[in-house]
Amino acid sequence: MSRLDVRHIVVTPIAFPDPPLLNAAGVHEPWALRTIVEVYADGGLVGLGETYGDAAHLVLVEKAAGALIGLDAFNLNDLRSRVAAAIGVVDAPDRHGLTGASSAEKTLARVVSPFEVACLDVQGHATERPVADLLGGRIRDRVPFSAYLFYKWAAHPGAEPDEWGEALDAEGIVRQARGMIDRYGFGSIKLKGGVFHPDEEIAAIEALREAFPEHPLRLDPNCAWTPATSRRVAERTTGLLEYLEDPTEGLAGMAEVARSASMPLATNMCVIGFGDIAESVRRGSVGVVLSDHHYWGGLRASAELAAICRTFGIGVSMHSNSHLGISLAAMVHLGAAVPNLSYAADTHTPWQCGADVVAETLTFVDGSVAVPTGPGLGVALDRDALARMHADYLRCGVTERNDTGYMRSIDPAYERKRPRW
Amino acid sequence: MSRLDVRHIVVTPIAFPDPPLLNAAGVHEPWALRTIVEVYADGGLVGLGETYGDAAHLVLVEKAAGALIGLDAFNLNDLRSRVAAAIGVVDAPDRHGLTGASSAEKTLARVVSPFEVACLDVQGHATERPVADLLGGRIRDRVPFSAYLFYKWAAHPGAEPDEWGEALDAEGIVRQARGMIDRYGFGSIKLKGGVFHPDEEIAAIEALREAFPEHPLRLDPNCAWTPATSRRVAERTTGLLEYLEDPTEGLAGMAEVARSASMPLATNMCVIGFGDIAESVRRGSVGVVLSDHHYWGGLRASAELAAICRTFGIGVSMHSNSHLGISLAAMVHLGAAVPNLSYAADTHTPWQCGADVVAETLTFVDGSVAVPTGPGLGVALDRDALARMHADYLRCGVTERNDTGYMRSIDPAYERKRPRW
Ligand SMILES: [Mg+2]
Ligand SMILES: [Mg+2]
Repeated sequence: MSRLDVRHIVVTPIAFPDPPLLNAAGVHEPWALRTIVEVYADGGLVGLGETYGDAAHLVLVEKAAGALIGLDAFNLNDLRSRVAAAIGVVDAPDRHGLTGASSAEKTLARVVSPFEVACLDVQGHATERPVADLLGGRIRDRVPFSAYLFYKWAAHPGAEPDEWGEALDAEGIVRQARGMIDRYGFGSIKLKGGVFHPDEEIAAIEALREAFPEHPLRLDPNCAWTPATSRRVAERTTGLLEYLEDPTEGLAGMAEVARSASMPLATNMCVIGFGDIAESVRRGSVGVVLSDHHYWGGLRASAELAAICRTFGIGVSMHSNSHLGISLAAMVHLGAAVPNLSYAADTHTPWQCGADVVAETLTFVDGSVAVPTGPGLGVALDRDALARMHADYLRCGVTERNDTGYMRSIDPAYERKRPRW
Repeated sequence: MSRLDVRHIVVTPIAFPDPPLLNAAGVHEPWALRTIVEVYADGGLVGLGETYGDAAHLVLVEKAAGALIGLDAFNLNDLRSRVAAAIGVVDAPDRHGLTGASSAEKTLARVVSPFEVACLDVQGHATERPVADLLGGRIRDRVPFSAYLFYKWAAHPGAEPDEWGEALDAEGIVRQARGMIDRYGFGSIKLKGGVFHPDEEIAAIEALREAFPEHPLRLDPNCAWTPATSRRVAERTTGLLEYLEDPTEGLAGMAEVARSASMPLATNMCVIGFGDIAESVRRGSVGVVLSDHHYWGGLRASAELAAICRTFGIGVSMHSNSHLGISLAAMVHLGAAVPNLSYAADTHTPWQCGADVVAETLTFVDGSVAVPTGPGLGVALDRDALARMHADYLRCGVTERNDTGYMRSIDPAYERKRPRW
């Protein structure tokens, strides 16, 4: 195995149905987008990656793919250099704005990610090793995930209700939690907030605590609050939350809240690239970073992030956007190999209602996913599903995530505000 | 390749001749010690590691070796857990004191290191990949090293002069530099100081600058100076040094010097474990960290250190103690894969006068070593040399590095002082 060259790359944008999940920026559209990357290398080996499906990002992913033919799949440093050269210095912000400010460095990391994962998958097949072994070896055989609750409508306007039903108050949220925990066995709970007045969301947390006395709870309003509101919520949820996620915007605001909050503040909005870390440490902005290989630049970069967090006494959890089984597998291998994954990871898997591009999806037992023991990521494409989801992408008319625009199409009076309270 | 289990480990302490190199703690003894680790795994694969030879360390290495039988050579996380369990919480300080304070965490890292390197070597042989590829892939094909100059006597008392001759003043240092650069082509120069009054060492730096106008220069007195002396030397060497290494002891003292110094301060004495980094960053103690896989816990840990340094705007160089060809190969693979190796690495190779345990030593061309392209580390044991050096270990009578004790045996009035000036 002197080289393991990339011969061919297929980039496929896809769409799959998404429930009307509410958040601080609006509501999920009926279709969620992803891009699937297949990297074909010497010896007929194929590696898989999954990333965002927004139009501007897709263009960059396609541009990068063209520059990777001839790459040695073991040279992930060269992968990054080639992608950087191919896309140039470009900043492709995500318009939905739920993952913080963008930059050229962050754009590069996002474009590198699916190819890095796919090359690790190729390496795993070539060496007959699970990806976790290429990241230092498994520390744990099962990776725990949390129940990720959303306020939601029963259905998209004009459509049939989805299997999860309505959740617009504390009672609905507890019912949703019960359904999700019954089905998946999750041992901790996250509530996506920033939708209703903070008092209502605190009431939901209190109701969850009563219904699930032992489950660690988290609340994430996506920066919907001022520092003052955040401090008040932190005070009222003392003893209730294992962490409070992105209550307010920016490293300065988060530091202001952190000074008085009894629980750690977590983030996937103010520390989202290596360039954010030094200032966050200096200010003491956050106690937990939610890693996400999709925007940190891949699995190895995410492991580096975890090493940095360990060094500075910062906890590590894992962020999730709407995703499918390739991303889930990647998260599980990373979670298996990172010693200091201090919290159960987020996942949107329950919200995909069974849709997937992989043939045999990884399953949740007692809230955890068993780390695949086969070569690579341990998942294979379901080509029929991929073709169907690509056709859905072409016909659905959505080309970029826009929770606010969709909400406005339903409620013209809706205004995006940050902070809102 | 479902598992790649460790079947057998051989731990061999060795000794090899060392010239009378002077430093802040005394002088190198006639014999330098190392321990060679051979890890035999499934399929007849063997991996090599090299570490310190001091008695207390050797005991721990042997204890660790016993706990690694059955380890999957791909599970480096499990390796660390097993070593931690085997040696317990123990602090084995190095008595020579030239690499800073010790701790249980640092002791564990030192014991893990040779096994981690050997397991990566095994992985490389199993996958037919150079170790650099297992660290993310090569960024560069050649890794640059610096000329590492020492004040020295012509010979150990009663022995024949070695090939390098005497160097006890600026003229001798320039002559030594010339000999080393003629032979190896080094493009930068480090002077080990802390031996003579700072004025003499500044004079040597000035003489080096005159003789080698283009070579970046470094001075390392191993904490021989007070902060006040350090500030004075920093002022007088402004424009002469690319960095000033460990002028004074401790993170607070270094920070005090750093505030007025025009050049970055480098260290392998105050930031020598992950636990030192946060305080160093907070205080602004150092601008360059000399990584050393022997005490940072292996090659992957050293790569993590480099990622941390990159994140906090700290430069990365590489430290060296007396070492042989296995360590040199490991340093080269790491240097190949770390994007931000900002400086030429230190090496003691010229001082070993050709002695080695590897059959074909890596060679310096224009001051750099070409990164091996074969599987693993790319070096193989010379078993005759290993046997000879082990016999030397048994007969030499040295069981732990003690530069001060040896100096006192020659000059009973010698006193170890830190700071001395
Ligand atoms: Mg979040
Ligand atoms: Mg030093």
